[in-house]
Amino acid sequence: MIKVGIIGATGYAGQELVRILLNHKEVSIVWYGSRSYVDQNYADIFQNLFTLVDAKCMDDNFAELCEAVDVIFTATPQGYLAGLLTEEILQKVKIVDLSADYRIKDVATYEKWYKIEHKSPQFIGEAVYGLCEINRGKITNQTRLVANPGCYTTCSILTAYPLVKEGLIDVDTLIIDAKSGTSGAGRGAKTPNLFCEVNENMKAYGVASHRHTPEIEEQLGYACDKEVCLNFTPHLVPMNRGILATEYAKLVKKPDGTYPAEAEIRSAYEKYYEGEKFVRVLKPGVCPETKWVEGSNYVDVNFVIDDRTHRVIMMGALDNLVKGAAGQAVQNMNLLFGLPESMGLELVPMFP
Amino acid sequence: MIKVGIIGATGYAGQELVRILLNHKEVSIVWYGSRSYVDQNYADIFQNLFTLVDAKCMDDNFAELCEAVDVIFTATPQGYLAGLLTEEILQKVKIVDLSADYRIKDVATYEKWYKIEHKSPQFIGEAVYGLCEINRGKITNQTRLVANPGCYTTCSILTAYPLVKEGLIDVDTLIIDAKSGTSGAGRGAKTPNLFCEVNENMKAYGVASHRHTPEIEEQLGYACDKEVCLNFTPHLVPMNRGILATEYAKLVKKPDGTYPAEAEIRSAYEKYYEGEKFVRVLKPGVCPETKWVEGSNYVDVNFVIDDRTHRVIMMGALDNLVKGAAGQAVQNMNLLFGLPESMGLELVPMFP
Amino acid sequence: MIKVGIIGATGYAGQELVRILLNHKEVSIVWYGSRSYVDQNYADIFQNLFTLVDAKCMDDNFAELCEAVDVIFTATPQGYLAGLLTEEILQKVKIVDLSADYRIKDVATYEKWYKIEHKSPQFIGEAVYGLCEINRGKITNQTRLVANPGCYTTCSILTAYPLVKEGLIDVDTLIIDAKSGTSGAGRGAKTPNLFCEVNENMKAYGVASHRHTPEIEEQLGYACDKEVCLNFTPHLVPMNRGILATEYAKLVKKPDGTYPAEAEIRSAYEKYYEGEKFVRVLKPGVCPETKWVEGSNYVDVNFVIDDRTHRVIMMGALDNLVKGAAGQAVQNMNLLFGLPESMGLELVPMFP
Amino acid sequence: MIKVGIIGATGYAGQELVRILLNHKEVSIVWYGSRSYVDQNYADIFQNLFTLVDAKCMDDNFAELCEAVDVIFTATPQGYLAGLLTEEILQKVKIVDLSADYRIKDVATYEKWYKIEHKSPQFIGEAVYGLCEINRGKITNQTRLVANPGCYTTCSILTAYPLVKEGLIDVDTLIIDAKSGTSGAGRGAKTPNLFCEVNENMKAYGVASHRHTPEIEEQLGYACDKEVCLNFTPHLVPMNRGILATEYAKLVKKPDGTYPAEAEIRSAYEKYYEGEKFVRVLKPGVCPETKWVEGSNYVDVNFVIDDRTHRVIMMGALDNLVKGAAGQAVQNMNLLFGLPESMGLELVPMFP
Repeated sequence: MIKVGIIGATGYAGQELVRILLNHKEVSIVWYGSRSYVDQNYADIFQNLFTLVDAKCMDDNFAELCEAVDVIFTATPQGYLAGLLTEEILQKVKIVDLSADYRIKDVATYEKWYKIEHKSPQFIGEAVYGLCEINRGKITNQTRLVANPGCYTTCSILTAYPLVKEGLIDVDTLIIDAKSGTSGAGRGAKTPNLFCEVNENMKAYGVASHRHTPEIEEQLGYACDKEVCLNFTPHLVPMNRGILATEYAKLVKKPDGTYPAEAEIRSAYEKYYEGEKFVRVLKPGVCPETKWVEGSNYVDVNFVIDDRTHRVIMMGALDNLVKGAAGQAVQNMNLLFGLPESMGLELVPMFP
Repeated sequence: MIKVGIIGATGYAGQELVRILLNHKEVSIVWYGSRSYVDQNYADIFQNLFTLVDAKCMDDNFAELCEAVDVIFTATPQGYLAGLLTEEILQKVKIVDLSADYRIKDVATYEKWYKIEHKSPQFIGEAVYGLCEINRGKITNQTRLVANPGCYTTCSILTAYPLVKEGLIDVDTLIIDAKSGTSGAGRGAKTPNLFCEVNENMKAYGVASHRHTPEIEEQLGYACDKEVCLNFTPHLVPMNRGILATEYAKLVKKPDGTYPAEAEIRSAYEKYYEGEKFVRVLKPGVCPETKWVEGSNYVDVNFVIDDRTHRVIMMGALDNLVKGAAGQAVQNMNLLFGLPESMGLELVPMFP
Repeated sequence: MIKVGIIGATGYAGQELVRILLNHKEVSIVWYGSRSYVDQNYADIFQNLFTLVDAKCMDDNFAELCEAVDVIFTATPQGYLAGLLTEEILQKVKIVDLSADYRIKDVATYEKWYKIEHKSPQFIGEAVYGLCEINRGKITNQTRLVANPGCYTTCSILTAYPLVKEGLIDVDTLIIDAKSGTSGAGRGAKTPNLFCEVNENMKAYGVASHRHTPEIEEQLGYACDKEVCLNFTPHLVPMNRGILATEYAKLVKKPDGTYPAEAEIRSAYEKYYEGEKFVRVLKPGVCPETKWVEGSNYVDVNFVIDDRTHRVIMMGALDNLVKGAAGQAVQNMNLLFGLPESMGLELVPMFP
Repeated sequence: MIKVGIIGATGYAGQELVRILLNHKEVSIVWYGSRSYVDQNYADIFQNLFTLVDAKCMDDNFAELCEAVDVIFTATPQGYLAGLLTEEILQKVKIVDLSADYRIKDVATYEKWYKIEHKSPQFIGEAVYGLCEINRGKITNQTRLVANPGCYTTCSILTAYPLVKEGLIDVDTLIIDAKSGTSGAGRGAKTPNLFCEVNENMKAYGVASHRHTPEIEEQLGYACDKEVCLNFTPHLVPMNRGILATEYAKLVKKPDGTYPAEAEIRSAYEKYYEGEKFVRVLKPGVCPETKWVEGSNYVDVNFVIDDRTHRVIMMGALDNLVKGAAGQAVQNMNLLFGLPESMGLELVPMFP
């Protein structure tokens, strides 16, 4: 049994880790960390887990925690893990970090977009960006630190990846218009996240400034081996879970003056995702819907070619708390411990 | 492996059966019956099951179906199963009927409330009312026909059962005010069920005439061994899943002129539900919320005593598609085949 | 022009007052009071009013406010107005208090249910309970202080009033099961009111202890001239606006052993509401729905008789921010200033 | 009094016309046309109008209707009005057509995108495209036929218009990603529009093929005096009302190699919208939200410049049933009859 500790267990992503790991047969959660609820029964906060979890919330005692567990999930605010991570910790436990602290390789970029100083840049190089479908080979039992990708990022990258990688689209024209359910905004008690403020409402936010932008750019940059600079616009939508990314790019004209057609684009998607359990390339003409992946680790992707504008419209949908956070974190944990990648993640999407 | 056939597989309850049974390790679904979608790919209708189900919808050929499966779930309109059930069928397969056809023992009562003639009353006596927590002993591998309880009914009965059974409340004063998410209204294309008609709206319906009334009365009547006549009012609420029942009754005054207190009432609940995996009696002061049971087979119950009025307010919450339909049907199937009752039902409620 | 000041203008009820009064042709709002947002532009907080309101939020300077306005609406927490009201203030301005401070005539009852000391009980006697349909005659240009009824209260009372008044139901059996949209919970930044906690969820709260209980009991007590003790259970429902009250009571048996029939009950409703613009007695068989009154000052009521149990099920629906708060407050203001009672309240319900 | 007839009065747009016109003091609705509900009480279908409307639904007898009214609003399916419009009708009444029949000047384009034959192309030339803010001068008491713009179209055009008109953006790079509430899908009883299918879900639809595309292209083409070919992608969002358009385009580089800055872009918006009552250019940094315009005739617009990509992200929000349909139709009617353009449209947005 892998002993697991969770820091930030009372946020939405933390609680989703609990939901998933309770049905993971090789895992035992031994530490429910939550500074806000120390000594309270975890199941008093999340009544869904009543009779399923019998444990109290613990303070963030990393020294003690390191001795008690094999792996720590940090579902914490930006800067938290960077502020306390040490070589000693990494020698004792593996860490899957759900925050952004080790996702971006360039410290200056991190500090510019996150507006905080990075306190432990020495570990950035070692951290593996845990987008399993792309970086699977780098996540092994030798890996100590996984930077679990962001929710928007996972959706945005996987939706465009095959076409970027294959050079089928002009990345300079790439625009990502993303929409998210409200659990992505976290569980903090803020007026803008109240039911009556969100319900029956829709808005863009963080326009041209959202922190997931450089993360997407960096990863797509690796795919096409050049610097990527794109527009990413997130939107808040009145639903609990789900991210939908609609992405636009010009198709690259071929030497003969034609543009890639449906079959060629589809081949590219199949080339990268045919064996991928958690990426479903939908049938032609079917648009991804967030409801079809809710509660599961799937990403549904598809595309439409517009012959009039020679653009391809790519679409991807995932559950921000599963494939966009906790599910992917478990996928990474499985790889870290040499378990089947999908163990504990055989979650059938719930409808309606 | 138990071979399963589902009639009405493209309704919400039918699809929920599929979702649950896909993770049931002793079951293989071999027949996805749906008259409306014959020959269409099941996963084209429910895209959540894309890559998980590779089967076409079948017509309702009972003769053929009986040969192909061990058990049939009928998630069909009232009167359907009653119209075609024969001794021959029951000799070949077990049936878990999610409709109301065999729930009510008195044919006249059935015909009065459902306003249709019962075509096969000869099987009513044999049918077992599949409320496992109460009738567990009667559901064995000898049972051929299970009448799976209604969604409102399950919630309403389990919420009040211990107090009715123990004679702690005056059943003549029992009033059930129930609220349901919209999946309970089915998947038929009707104007009143359109998003814009239901969203941001709330209403009572079927007041003093809802068909679950006699079912509740009959079962609670068995518990207190007298005829029960109560008020049951269902309401439609803008959410997908979930039923909340709020029930009111006068406490029975004791010979010494006092009324049962908190401890005594709680004891009654514990007496009947202590060993029950799927009924959770919440801690004092905690009101059941539908979200805490969503996607799971749990019923959460609790109560408050009002010393001013000497009434007890009982509350129960369940997911109408799981414990209120498909989950309970699987629970019954497990009993029919001698499997552990909770097999395939270890569903952790999803939050948020 | 009546000069209006609003204290608590940045809560939901306060903002609704602004929305309504902007279209009231005899009113000018001259004071937008909000301690939390002092000196901020009101329309920066409520962008719906951009270009419509050009004013900054003011601190709660009552001395100054009294000089500036003709009437003050206090949409403030319980105890606030009671803590500062003086004879001097009442000599200068009229007050419509949307809090509960002067609704309950018995100080002990107020203090018991609200758990705070009442700081100015000397004004309770003078305050008129502003349920216009019942107390219209007492709200004149001589009135100085109106206690605007609560949202649940307005709905609960008006739904049952004719039958209580006419002695057609046994008030000892009266049970009120009420459901409310979330704006009733206010605009405070609390975790339980976050979108993800409320959405797709439903629960009872304040069971047997909600503060609107004694208010309902007192007013219905006046109607039947005896002490009333009933059960009132509020529920939280995932929608912005709307209250639905479902009320149950035994019909009073007549000397001849029969019970009041449909026509007699309907006559009672018509007797009291026939000339009432804002109370709509629906056609037989039509259940009130909150959506049909959204944004308006209407209360829709109706009933169903259950011949089996000899109970009548009464139903009422209103918009908690309009007839349940700001709309009724304006209705009271109109009476205070001798204006037509419906001035500014010709709001057509918005659908969908 | 202007006598008004509505064809399609029981759709969402038709009903919204009624809601608005009931408070229009120069209008009397004399004909509630609805083939589906002939002879039924209009207020039995829309209970919100109980006591407000006392009329029965009428069949579509155009001959009779022409004699009875001064203006007809057709809120009908595509092709309906084109199939019956005659010179004789236009000589008797004015028509504001909420369908697409006369919006597109090129018949071939109409027939290609709508896939139906246009039965009365002879009136297309005469019809005025009723986007008041742009075509106000053409809508006079001489005008007989107004083509009321589409909901997505109104939002998409007004959001980009100043920048297109002033040549500040490269229209070949223009991409419109639009999101709509569900009332835009109409009131037809279709499974995909059921509450449980839409709620907690999000999807793109009509990708690269939505019929509002050529309408947007034509109008923006007039603004920049060249042919426009762009991408328009609509999305369905779980809310009743509201459209949000997020639009992307490259800024045009100036001769000196720089790009237009914030002030210049803002000037362009102010140039066209400063005197416009119904277009609100928000303060810098404020993103439009659909909730802030709900129930009103406002369009809120704003923009953000991304200095990294030299794109401008334009955003616009409106209520699809008001400014996107019925409100704009009334605005057009006012112009047709020489009334103040905003008469009856002084609707304060409702929040929450």
